[in-house]
Amino acid sequence: MRTALCETFGIEHPIVGFTPSEHVAAAISRAGGLGVLGCVRFNDADELDTVLDWMDANTDGKPYGVDVVMPMKVPQEGTSVDLGELVPPEHRRFVDRTLSELGVPELPSEQQQSDAVLGWLHSVARAHVDVALKHPVKLIANALGSPPKDVIDEAHDAGVLVAALAGKGDHAVSHVDKGVDIVVAQGHEAGGHTGEIASMVLVPEVVDAVGDRVPVLAAGGIGSGRQVAAALALGASGAWMGSYWLTTSEYAMTAGDTAMQRALVSAGSADTVRSRIYTGKPARLLKTKWTEAWESPEAPEPLPMPLQNILVSEAHQRIMRSDDPEVVSMPVGQIVGRMNAVRSVQDVMSELVRDTEKTVARLGELS
Amino acid sequence: MRTALCETFGIEHPIVGFTPSEHVAAAISRAGGLGVLGCVRFNDADELDTVLDWMDANTDGKPYGVDVVMPMKVPQEGTSVDLGELVPPEHRRFVDRTLSELGVPELPSEQQQSDAVLGWLHSVARAHVDVALKHPVKLIANALGSPPKDVIDEAHDAGVLVAALAGKGDHAVSHVDKGVDIVVAQGHEAGGHTGEIASMVLVPEVVDAVGDRVPVLAAGGIGSGRQVAAALALGASGAWMGSYWLTTSEYAMTAGDTAMQRALVSAGSADTVRSRIYTGKPARLLKTKWTEAWESPEAPEPLPMPLQNILVSEAHQRIMRSDDPEVVSMPVGQIVGRMNAVRSVQDVMSELVRDTEKTVARLGELS
Repeated sequence: MRTALCETFGIEHPIVGFTPSEHVAAAISRAGGLGVLGCVRFNDADELDTVLDWMDANTDGKPYGVDVVMPMKVPQEGTSVDLGELVPPEHRRFVDRTLSELGVPELPSEQQQSDAVLGWLHSVARAHVDVALKHPVKLIANALGSPPKDVIDEAHDAGVLVAALAGKGDHAVSHVDKGVDIVVAQGHEAGGHTGEIASMVLVPEVVDAVGDRVPVLAAGGIGSGRQVAAALALGASGAWMGSYWLTTSEYAMTAGDTAMQRALVSAGSADTVRSRIYTGKPARLLKTKWTEAWESPEAPEPLPMPLQNILVSEAHQRIMRSDDPEVVSMPVGQIVGRMNAVRSVQDVMSELVRDTEKTVARLGELS
Repeated sequence: MRTALCETFGIEHPIVGFTPSEHVAAAISRAGGLGVLGCVRFNDADELDTVLDWMDANTDGKPYGVDVVMPMKVPQEGTSVDLGELVPPEHRRFVDRTLSELGVPELPSEQQQSDAVLGWLHSVARAHVDVALKHPVKLIANALGSPPKDVIDEAHDAGVLVAALAGKGDHAVSHVDKGVDIVVAQGHEAGGHTGEIASMVLVPEVVDAVGDRVPVLAAGGIGSGRQVAAALALGASGAWMGSYWLTTSEYAMTAGDTAMQRALVSAGSADTVRSRIYTGKPARLLKTKWTEAWESPEAPEPLPMPLQNILVSEAHQRIMRSDDPEVVSMPVGQIVGRMNAVRSVQDVMSELVRDTEKTVARLGELS
């Protein structure tokens, strides 16, 4: 099952895997897909540099990419301390009260006041790009649309392709007009930042909108070969999958977060919610007691990006340490209903490829 | 492009078309699909009888079906007068004020106080079934899940299959346990009553949940051959399409509602909203000044089914007569973004079939 995307990147299968785990990303690339490492968690660009050194040593020379979070418009930003002062005290009180009601312990004193996740800041995302371009990355993807023009030019000068997520046809056209090489059409059912339009409608709409100018990847709702084949039927050149790798054994190597994986494995497709509480922009998350607390009448309105992430950053650390499957803060798509076991990336990839081929063969027999 | 569904119904293409218009339903059947006539608008079962006589004379002996709206649990209900008394006066005042602000004229005096749409009432839906079974219908579909067991038995005794819509895997299993013969997996992107889970995730989930017991139709987001092929890739035995027929020339023959068609033709895939204002249950509608008014802070909470429909029934009549594309009350799915011209049913069907085959051929060349 090869598409033009396979030639573009020199990969075996038209499957791109986004993941915050270098262990997963490297395994996806080794298994014949394109692993794309999410950079938002690296506050320190040097730390990313070290991890990309590890990727270079563990991908058997196979291609890989990185994903940054860069708003199209360069925001005014101060230091993290300045931004922290913009978080209203009543929001902080709500978070503290909620965590206490949910039985989430405080951080040990030596870990308190650690930094918020700064990867959402434009300056940090730029440093990610600079570091990535020193490594043999094949793709820089941006979760928030097209990066600024000089970033696109910098990538192109280094022979690196740029991908941008889009939730509407006209957004996709605007990305391509700005120089983006690949559009990721991300449907409503996807995890993380996602729009209103579902993949079944969005993917052909984006494909038609960009025409022959660039290939389109389908994102949202993909976790089986039938869904990969459906994405190809809709006109995509490949699948962009994020959620599905969260229950791989390699993910546990990075996160060591077994409560989160237990929560995902037992969740159904109806157990997600689209909410602004993770970053300030609508993102699909696993439905847990934490997301429910934010839906109570006493909960404040989430803050705009990047303030909301600064507000909940310590909460996320506390929640992760508490290891309680009922209180998890995790972006995941509706495909979580199909994530029912912890398996290796190679297992997942082999089954995806086999079932995609089986599906295409089944369709061929209908005509 | 034939599936087992084609054998089951003796149809040429695995495409089922739901529509409130007998002109569209008959044209779908004549074009080789299965036309399914929505019955909810027939307050008087005799009127349905007359329309089905017309269907019998205009389908060239091709199979067709009907769609009723029957809650699984038989509700306590009085006459329409009793129910009308349960509508709070402040709701009526909001509707009157809104229509006046939107410039929607009152009904001519001879049309005032006409009946609400009673097809939402269980007793009326039962009368629809009784009438339908006197005609050579092949399918009775129920928009609200499995009908009561005696209705299923009555249909089966007459050799008629029963279909039920489902928005979750476990609902589908429950329908099949009750005797339903075909499940329509209706994704979030669909028009009308719809759940949270999008087609890309829902269809294979329902297919896996019901296994080999019954065929599954994919509903939601289908308006091109690529989308029909995607539905088949996801494991569906065919496509259930509703919205797409609203912009056919045959639909205009029934509704004569050109403002509505103009509004649909110019709408994009983002121009829908899922709201309880149409029936009391969440249904996806075209986004217009009418739906926006119900989202304003002064708007009351919609009433439960069937009260909400009684509340807005006269408003719907007034809106339809006002012929203003900016004030329309119409269920439609996100596929509205692909409904860009008024065409004949035969044109639509031919293109769907041709593009489905082209898509399957394209996929075959990838492997």
